[in-house]
Amino acid sequence: MQTSHQKVQVGIVGGTGYTGVELLRTLANHPSAEVKMITSRSEDGVAVADMYPNLRGIYDLQFSVPDIDKLKTCDVVFFATPHGVAMSMTPELIANGVKVIDLAADFRIEDLTVWQKWYGMEHTGADLMSNVVYGLPEYYRSRIKNASVIANPGCYPTSILLGVLPLLNAGLIEADSIIADGKSGVSGAGKGANVAMLGAEMSESFKAYGVSGHRHLPEIAEKLSELTEQDIDLTFVPHLVPMIRGMESTIYATLKEDVSQEELQALYETTYSFEPFVDVMPSGSLPETRMVKGSNMCRMAIYRPADGKRVVVTSVIDNLVKGAAGQAIQNMNILFGLEETQGLTQVALLP
Amino acid sequence: MQTSHQKVQVGIVGGTGYTGVELLRTLANHPSAEVKMITSRSEDGVAVADMYPNLRGIYDLQFSVPDIDKLKTCDVVFFATPHGVAMSMTPELIANGVKVIDLAADFRIEDLTVWQKWYGMEHTGADLMSNVVYGLPEYYRSRIKNASVIANPGCYPTSILLGVLPLLNAGLIEADSIIADGKSGVSGAGKGANVAMLGAEMSESFKAYGVSGHRHLPEIAEKLSELTEQDIDLTFVPHLVPMIRGMESTIYATLKEDVSQEELQALYETTYSFEPFVDVMPSGSLPETRMVKGSNMCRMAIYRPADGKRVVVTSVIDNLVKGAAGQAIQNMNILFGLEETQGLTQVALLP
Amino acid sequence: MQTSHQKVQVGIVGGTGYTGVELLRTLANHPSAEVKMITSRSEDGVAVADMYPNLRGIYDLQFSVPDIDKLKTCDVVFFATPHGVAMSMTPELIANGVKVIDLAADFRIEDLTVWQKWYGMEHTGADLMSNVVYGLPEYYRSRIKNASVIANPGCYPTSILLGVLPLLNAGLIEADSIIADGKSGVSGAGKGANVAMLGAEMSESFKAYGVSGHRHLPEIAEKLSELTEQDIDLTFVPHLVPMIRGMESTIYATLKEDVSQEELQALYETTYSFEPFVDVMPSGSLPETRMVKGSNMCRMAIYRPADGKRVVVTSVIDNLVKGAAGQAIQNMNILFGLEETQGLTQVALLP
Amino acid sequence: MQTSHQKVQVGIVGGTGYTGVELLRTLANHPSAEVKMITSRSEDGVAVADMYPNLRGIYDLQFSVPDIDKLKTCDVVFFATPHGVAMSMTPELIANGVKVIDLAADFRIEDLTVWQKWYGMEHTGADLMSNVVYGLPEYYRSRIKNASVIANPGCYPTSILLGVLPLLNAGLIEADSIIADGKSGVSGAGKGANVAMLGAEMSESFKAYGVSGHRHLPEIAEKLSELTEQDIDLTFVPHLVPMIRGMESTIYATLKEDVSQEELQALYETTYSFEPFVDVMPSGSLPETRMVKGSNMCRMAIYRPADGKRVVVTSVIDNLVKGAAGQAIQNMNILFGLEETQGLTQVALLP
Repeated sequence: MQTSHQKVQVGIVGGTGYTGVELLRTLANHPSAEVKMITSRSEDGVAVADMYPNLRGIYDLQFSVPDIDKLKTCDVVFFATPHGVAMSMTPELIANGVKVIDLAADFRIEDLTVWQKWYGMEHTGADLMSNVVYGLPEYYRSRIKNASVIANPGCYPTSILLGVLPLLNAGLIEADSIIADGKSGVSGAGKGANVAMLGAEMSESFKAYGVSGHRHLPEIAEKLSELTEQDIDLTFVPHLVPMIRGMESTIYATLKEDVSQEELQALYETTYSFEPFVDVMPSGSLPETRMVKGSNMCRMAIYRPADGKRVVVTSVIDNLVKGAAGQAIQNMNILFGLEETQGLTQVALLP
Repeated sequence: MQTSHQKVQVGIVGGTGYTGVELLRTLANHPSAEVKMITSRSEDGVAVADMYPNLRGIYDLQFSVPDIDKLKTCDVVFFATPHGVAMSMTPELIANGVKVIDLAADFRIEDLTVWQKWYGMEHTGADLMSNVVYGLPEYYRSRIKNASVIANPGCYPTSILLGVLPLLNAGLIEADSIIADGKSGVSGAGKGANVAMLGAEMSESFKAYGVSGHRHLPEIAEKLSELTEQDIDLTFVPHLVPMIRGMESTIYATLKEDVSQEELQALYETTYSFEPFVDVMPSGSLPETRMVKGSNMCRMAIYRPADGKRVVVTSVIDNLVKGAAGQAIQNMNILFGLEETQGLTQVALLP
Repeated sequence: MQTSHQKVQVGIVGGTGYTGVELLRTLANHPSAEVKMITSRSEDGVAVADMYPNLRGIYDLQFSVPDIDKLKTCDVVFFATPHGVAMSMTPELIANGVKVIDLAADFRIEDLTVWQKWYGMEHTGADLMSNVVYGLPEYYRSRIKNASVIANPGCYPTSILLGVLPLLNAGLIEADSIIADGKSGVSGAGKGANVAMLGAEMSESFKAYGVSGHRHLPEIAEKLSELTEQDIDLTFVPHLVPMIRGMESTIYATLKEDVSQEELQALYETTYSFEPFVDVMPSGSLPETRMVKGSNMCRMAIYRPADGKRVVVTSVIDNLVKGAAGQAIQNMNILFGLEETQGLTQVALLP
Repeated sequence: MQTSHQKVQVGIVGGTGYTGVELLRTLANHPSAEVKMITSRSEDGVAVADMYPNLRGIYDLQFSVPDIDKLKTCDVVFFATPHGVAMSMTPELIANGVKVIDLAADFRIEDLTVWQKWYGMEHTGADLMSNVVYGLPEYYRSRIKNASVIANPGCYPTSILLGVLPLLNAGLIEADSIIADGKSGVSGAGKGANVAMLGAEMSESFKAYGVSGHRHLPEIAEKLSELTEQDIDLTFVPHLVPMIRGMESTIYATLKEDVSQEELQALYETTYSFEPFVDVMPSGSLPETRMVKGSNMCRMAIYRPADGKRVVVTSVIDNLVKGAAGQAIQNMNILFGLEETQGLTQVALLP
């Protein structure tokens, strides 16, 4: 636990991607944390501000080769790495009292057989899993406080879990009726040189992808089952939107009983009334991704069209903030007993 | 019927919007039709090329005030007007042997009580409805040939009907299980001065709209019921995509029986094997809206994710072409005994 | 002057446009100022958060009809109004010790004959002009401190004046050789319902506008003349870029003498070495508008291509921040003796 | 020369990039030419329609390894290759009577010393240069007719040469006063996997590039000098616009004599009155890139702002059409005695 006089010392492993720069952007104005080191094998010695010119004048840091002994001097280490890296370095870090927040998928799925199937590699961190808490504060806050390893949720899972859990927890919908139609901006694909993500390829076009199966599906399904103690049958189709940031999920489910639009609205408002980063839109309005661009908010709306048998939830986040770096910092704040909103009060950039 | 020596003489009523310019763009290279007049009350006397500079050097036409006597000299009149205009002028036109193709919604829904509820105005054309055929050639071609009035389908209905009908016709899905998640580019909202459609408002953002009910829902439901002779319960949520053109619909339904991915693929390929404007993508691939930008094609794919109980169809069109002006010209070609693809061979603009 | 215990009380007149919401966004996290009232005739009684949902949960304010007696209780009033409003209300405000910062053009041009020609209306505030200081802190900081009225500069003038003044002040370029080719995102056109600014019109297109004359031209020319005490002949052509935010100006001028690339770089770095919001890019690199998106920075580069007779400066700002609301708050900070960077430390949103 | 019964047999070398697909798209509807083969070493055996799904159902071709013996059976070979390829294969082709149209830069600059400096490789085709004609039909049409090798102009050169030549030819401007500020959509950067061209990088941003020197500068300067028989001092700065297609050049020059706006307008209209692909906009209007999207037109306007000493020309093309593939086909039409507009009558896609 931090004393009041010290700032949380942050290490970032693998900071050259969009999640890395987003951590740096957000932490730049965090009153109680500071970035002590940021690593990248390929960019060793390069100034952070040379790779990310929005950080010119703000950070004096250089990327360095990851060094476990130096990372052990941090209070918390964020992994913004490809899958598999966090699980290899985590044991030594937590043995030294360093908290780990993994923004990759290493610890997101408890059933490691499922994990191995979807991620196509061996999971070497079975022993670690008892230390792991899934970092969705709205549903795991009390356990996060005492965790040593946080599995920061995927972006689609964040928007879908927050959107559908009130219905499931209230027992209002059929557990095998959930369909989640997700849409993501292109920053979700990362900064790799990928022809399909060229501006000339993705601009002015829209498409579904991963229809036959996406890694976020088992993550969502497992958490829904775990939190509501029942089997879940989920259909999930992600789509690519020609915009940089933002994620919207439209979730459909079949009602088990008659419930009015007003009751649904009240359920959602009550569920999230004390949540600083979940905003239920007023009845009759709908969220847009620009309402959360650059902010850690999740905004959502609940509808029962034509008083029919189905409910529709639409939920928006910034995939890089509440869907990644912002939520990670929210988890850090909880881990270190800080005010949960510290450093996360940025207003969405609109227009 | 045209003789081989004459071109079909086309009149366009209400040609200042995006549907109007798209009719002009497409007809510019049509070998067997020519635009004789185009009307607009507000733009009377303005050269078409002044309003739409892409037409400079191509059309010498000016907008003129609509004059029913002049319109009667055309072979066919396209209505690209607000709802309600076509039904008022159609009786006199068809009485004079002029074919009418309405790109608005006046004749799309046969149940006029339903129509009046959704369009919020009285329907004054009940007598006309026996002359009307719904202009989706893939399912109404033989009736279109002999119609005097064509109700050109809405854009969402086009993409959704083409996508889901093979499943329904084969009896493979539950009729009350259909969910259609539609996404449209902003040209679908038309050329009216609307703050929500400003570039600074809609760019870099994604949202659902019309969740509580959209006019295309009853149109889709009625045609599905009519064509498959059963009650249909459909949930439809449209979304706005930050791009100009393009529409994608992801359609979910519950299977009634076990059917393999291969059988589904074969069903779709067989259904549309002779259709010039429907393209079933190869197994394992997915359509993108840019694959049809500026063209009259509808491209689609069919999936059964994880061999589960649900099927997913994703279907793309250009909302202004197959979703409006292109399909209208396809209907004109059928009406006048022309080759159905005449004037519609433009290749999608990619990149 | 504020005591240390009080926050600067801010009033905003005409806050429904993009400049208004940007003032609100930025002031939300300002440690020493708070928005006390925001006015709009047309939106009287509407909650700010209903018009700008990014502000939900942040402001509890409603728009109200402008009331001079209430505005007089503020410490500073920002005008984010059409031209002509600020000059009518300013006399009573400054008579009561309220500072005025006008984000419109009422006070930008000292030569009122020129002003009247370009703005097409009578200027009724001649008496006020002695109280006005042009709010470009980098060149007018000492005078801003003691002003009662600040003419917040236009967006193009900000980017062009900051870019070219080091060359002119150093006497390195011909005063009649300056060509400024400016490019702006569409938010610069404001939130009015304007067909030309629809997403379907401005997306995927680029154009020059105002070639025969733009209001920012006399503003730039007057300030250049005033600050460098010579006649200036400037050619300025603005362009519209299909993006929401951001402005780039490429400035060309003819050298009067031989000066090396290194000397030019040194001149720029020296000129702006102590400026918190001007960043000279390293030699050989170039600024991009995304490097300043949502931030108050101006980044620039200076080149002498092929050691020829011309220099080229490229300068970028966010038109809504350094080009409008951010610079206004910077001026407020100076006026009230606050740290100049207070509330303006947001890092540009990249990607 | 083609007989009237045969179609021109076209070979395309290196057809996997954007220029290649654009050639295919345009030739698909060409009445007098057909694509016989298209080569790509890396994609040997891949169906063209698999790489470019907009071509599904239109071409049955597969990419094949380039084979000079097969290429010799074509009437014309287009090179859409990296620099250096065309010059190696051209001798054998033209020796066999095959026309060559190079869309790369191998033959664009007659001064091979200059070429080698800017392209950083040895030029091995000095012997060929006497057979080469620069393929800008508006100024080289009569020579193109009898050429065996066409150097298809660069995109920036096309827009700038067409824009400024009337002024230079009329002797109205100082030859050392020309400044060309060019702006290009991202398709100009090609289809290579390049991080800077990712959608998440280039969207919502604008930047200058190549300020210290761009390869199109010597090409423009040489042609200006050659065509007007004088030394030219040109400053050229290209910029990247966040859109897929389109190029705008704003050209500034200093007048040598007093000439009215009306005289300038008349000069331009007269110069291009018989050109099918150059459109001088009406006085007082300005071209936008969307007015030529997907079409072979160049549209332009000429201004003398405030009756001052400078003229401003703004000129737009689609960089992939008049700036590449369309102009290449225009050259082919001239070479084979076809109607110059054949296959090039597509109307710009607007909106």
